[in-house]
Formats: sequence, C-alpha cells, structure tokens
Amino acid sequence: MNASLPAAVRIVEVGARDGLQNEKATVATADKIALIDRLSATGLQSIEATSFVSPKWVPQLADAAEVFAGIARRPGVHYPVLVPNEQGYERARAVGVEEIAVFTAASEAFNRKNINAGIDESLARFAPVLERARNDGVRVRGYVSTVLGCPYQGEVPLSDVVRVARALHAMGCYEVSLGDTIGVGTPGKARAMLKAVAAEVPMPALAVHFHDTYGQALSNILACLEEGVAVVDSAVSGAGGCPYAMGASGNVASEDVVYMLHGLGIATGVDLPALAETGRWLAGLLGRDTGSKVGKALAAS
Amino acid sequence: MNASLPAAVRIVEVGARDGLQNEKATVATADKIALIDRLSATGLQSIEATSFVSPKWVPQLADAAEVFAGIARRPGVHYPVLVPNEQGYERARAVGVEEIAVFTAASEAFNRKNINAGIDESLARFAPVLERARNDGVRVRGYVSTVLGCPYQGEVPLSDVVRVARALHAMGCYEVSLGDTIGVGTPGKARAMLKAVAAEVPMPALAVHFHDTYGQALSNILACLEEGVAVVDSAVSGAGGCPYAMGASGNVASEDVVYMLHGLGIATGVDLPALAETGRWLAGLLGRDTGSKVGKALAAS
Repeated sequence: MNASLPAAVRIVEVGARDGLQNEKATVATADKIALIDRLSATGLQSIEATSFVSPKWVPQLADAAEVFAGIARRPGVHYPVLVPNEQGYERARAVGVEEIAVFTAASEAFNRKNINAGIDESLARFAPVLERARNDGVRVRGYVSTVLGCPYQGEVPLSDVVRVARALHAMGCYEVSLGDTIGVGTPGKARAMLKAVAAEVPMPALAVHFHDTYGQALSNILACLEEGVAVVDSAVSGAGGCPYAMGASGNVASEDVVYMLHGLGIATGVDLPALAETGRWLAGLLGRDTGSKVGKALAAS
Repeated sequence: MNASLPAAVRIVEVGARDGLQNEKATVATADKIALIDRLSATGLQSIEATSFVSPKWVPQLADAAEVFAGIARRPGVHYPVLVPNEQGYERARAVGVEEIAVFTAASEAFNRKNINAGIDESLARFAPVLERARNDGVRVRGYVSTVLGCPYQGEVPLSDVVRVARALHAMGCYEVSLGDTIGVGTPGKARAMLKAVAAEVPMPALAVHFHDTYGQALSNILACLEEGVAVVDSAVSGAGGCPYAMGASGNVASEDVVYMLHGLGIATGVDLPALAETGRWLAGLLGRDTGSKVGKALAAS
C-alpha cells in the first residue's frame, strides 16, 4: 500500500448528465428520476443530475426542470446541474437548484469550435453566473476539459490547463474538475498535469475526470490518488460513450472506480453491489451491456 | 513521471495460447500460424505459441505440433509453449521447441480441483521435465496462478504465493509469471504481493500476468511497474475471456498495455498500430469485437 493515498475519496457521479447527454437511446423522464434516486440510495454524496444547457444543443436533457423537480433529494447529498449562462442559471434556480457546474476547455481550438470563443472570452462569459451564484449562496463546480489532449488541436499546453483551472478557482469554483475528454492520457502525463495544477490550486479543490477511451482511466486515477487527489468523477455503467470516437468508451465506470478504491482500502461510502445493480438496470434502459467490467463480473459470478 | 519506472518492458504475448485456449470459436491451424507470424512482425520478443497439454483437456490447441512447425520463427524471438509433463515435453521437442512454460497455482484448492494434487505434489511432477529441459538447454518459464484470489478457496495466503514462486525459480525457471487468474486484485494488493515475492526471487526473474475481469489490470500493472517489474504478460485483443465468469473479460489486452507503457515513456519495441490491427483481425476470426479499448479507439478515430 502507498502511504500517501487518501483515506477517503468522494465520487462525483456524472452518469445522469454527462452519461445520458451522450447516449443515443431516449430515456424517459421518470427513468431519469429513478436513476438519480437509485444512485443516491447507494451512498453517493455528489450526483450530477442534469443540464440546463439549451435543449437545442442537448435535446437528451430537455426535461431538466422536470427531472430536478422530481427527484427525492436526500439530506447531505449534492445534486449539481450544468449551467452555461444566466438563462440556464435562472431555469435551474426556478426549480430549487443549490449547486451548479460551469464548463470550459483548456484547449483554445476546442473552445472556438464549441462556443465560438477563445479561453479568455469563455471565462468572461461565466463571470455574471458566478457572481449571481455567490450572492445566492449557490455552490459552483468548474469543469476544465481537454486537459491531456484535444480532438482539434492535439497537444494542449500544460500552462493553459493551469491557467484555466486557476481562473475558475479564483472566480469562486469550490472545486475544479480536470477532464481528459478524449481519454488519451496515460498515468505519467496525468500525474504531471495534476502536479502542475496543484501548484496553483489547492489539492482539496481539485477533482479528476478520466475517460476510458484507451482503457487508461483507472491507472490515471491511481497515479492521481498517489499525488493526493481525493475527488473522482465517474459514470455508473460507463454511460456516455465517446463523442469523438464512435463505438469507443467514454466516462470511466463508477463501479470499476469504487472497486479499485475499496481494494486500496479507501473509503467511498458507496454500496458497490447496489451501484453495480443500478448500472445493469441503466444498461437495460439503454439497450446495451453494462460498460462496467465490475458490473459484468459481479453479474456473472 | 515516476523515476523508478523501468526504461523498457518486455511483453510476453499469450493470446495464441492462453487466449485461444479459452475461446469458444474454432480457429483454423493456418490462422493460428498467421496470428503468430503477424505478432512477431510487430516487434514482440516473446510469443507464447501453443500448448502441448493433452488435446483431451484443451481441444482448442490439439494442433499444437502443426502450429509450431508452421510458424516462421524470427531470430531473437522466443516462442514458449505450455508443457504439463514429460509426454508433452517430448511432443514439443519433436517439432523443435526451445522454450517451454510450466504452470501451477498458489492455491491449494485450485491445484486439487484442476490436477488432483496439492501444491507440493504439483511441483514434484515438474521435476523430471525441468531436469530434461536443463540437460537439453531448453529455457523454462514458470506460471503461478491464483496469486490474488482463487475461485474455489477465495483468499490465497501470500506465503503460498512466495513459496511456489521461489520453488519454481529454484527448480530452474528463468522467469516466474505471477497470475491473477480471476482478476480480482487491486493495485495495493498487487504491489504487496509482488514485493513479497521479490524479497525471495530477484525482480528481473519476475513477470506479472493480470486479468481485466474487474477492469483493474492496467492499474495493477502500473503499481507493479513502480515496484520495478519489467516483464508483463498480455493477450492481443484481450483474447480469452474469463473461464470463471461467463461473459467477463480475461487477459488484459496487449494493445492497452503497450499504449500505457509508451505513454509512460517505457520502450517495448512493439509497433502499436500493427498490433491493434492484428487484434482487430483476430477479433474478426473470433466473430466478436476486439477486447482492446485502444484497438476500438484507433479504429474509430
């Protein structure tokens, strides 16, 4: 055992948002609500519930308000929702949202392609949302995507990753999640990236978000745990896939992360068999096999 | 980057033996030969070719002699074959085999179930094979299975793993491969197991063999690389599956291992695109998707 590993890790479950947003199958509003309630029953403390991005851009989550209004919110569990701008912020607040997430990329090309703005302009666009959140006592999580590579520009300078993470933290994000959006990273690069960011943003304010497109997510997480990170994003059943490589994997499966953490003696508070059962149930809704190897192995054994 | 990682790693490709032996699909002898020749063309230095276990037990590899006689042996490439006893040794030698592998388990229950003998008796059975190999100048690799758990007895005492590995090394195996046969291990346990064995058997004589049944193989390999291991077993396309959990994954995919190693700056001598192409070709023969995430991602991108 590595003496420097954290004693406990908080999982930020992103299947209901980052997962479903990238699935082709249509999931009924009632099933989304059931998914979130099943997830909160497993002991997860942070469950990203939905997105208040315009339904024009994310039709899969057009029912964001109904979903959020329908879930049985458990005391102590956080239910962040994605918010792109003030309009989304108002829609979210109207149904009682108490935590939001904002997102940008460390890649200049990715930002220009996705929101037709450079990194700095993207950050400037958040300012009014973050100010309102601060005034309203709403917690804000920040996502930085493409931290280890970009589908448009390839390499992403580490200095840009650090700059964007530092800016989000300085603007008031209590936590900044560092995302390898296309899953190309390997443990040495993940470790170096996290170390560089942690030199500017305190480690307790950092989370890692790995995609398993090249099968590297768990080893990247392990390297980052060794550096002291204690918050990990993942999606039950590996929901989502990779929008940049058809048929390839996207979000790392929460079940596989929790299995590794428990094996390392790291507490998560999550009931793994219940989580795996929820993952298989979700896979059934999506009409495919679970994307979790633990989910498959537990079902088979 | 971790300063203690090895500069180079030798992959022992086990797809043609450990993989095909556990696949339901029948692969023609000519295709097995083509697989091995394609693998040697990628730069792999160790390719387990087949098994001279009785065809009664492993019907998938009943054509061992024809396969071995048919491959185009490259200078500098080793082609070990599995040999269970003197009869198998003689069949292997008759077609020019120069390296063999013997196998046993660290679990008393696993040995009793599979070969109706305890650990000590299993070791004693190898003695004549190892003596003949020594006299003939034949290299011998030793496998220890169930090093992190057993499908029959559950926990496997670390002391049994150490005892069996030490015995195989003492009996003349130049390399001892430590196998997590049911893929239940996690990085802390893998690291502790390797450290315990390495206290008795020199690290350069050790290899690790992880199954990806619970998705943990790469993170286990990473932990073991950090401890200094420099030989890793894997199977192209993740061939094989898990005989103890239907539908679950078995051998870790060579492509995913090589991707991680190259990303860590560790040399393997392997041409990754050629290996991934071979993995997809093999998956086609087996009538299924490649079991390598790298194979899928490279094909999609």
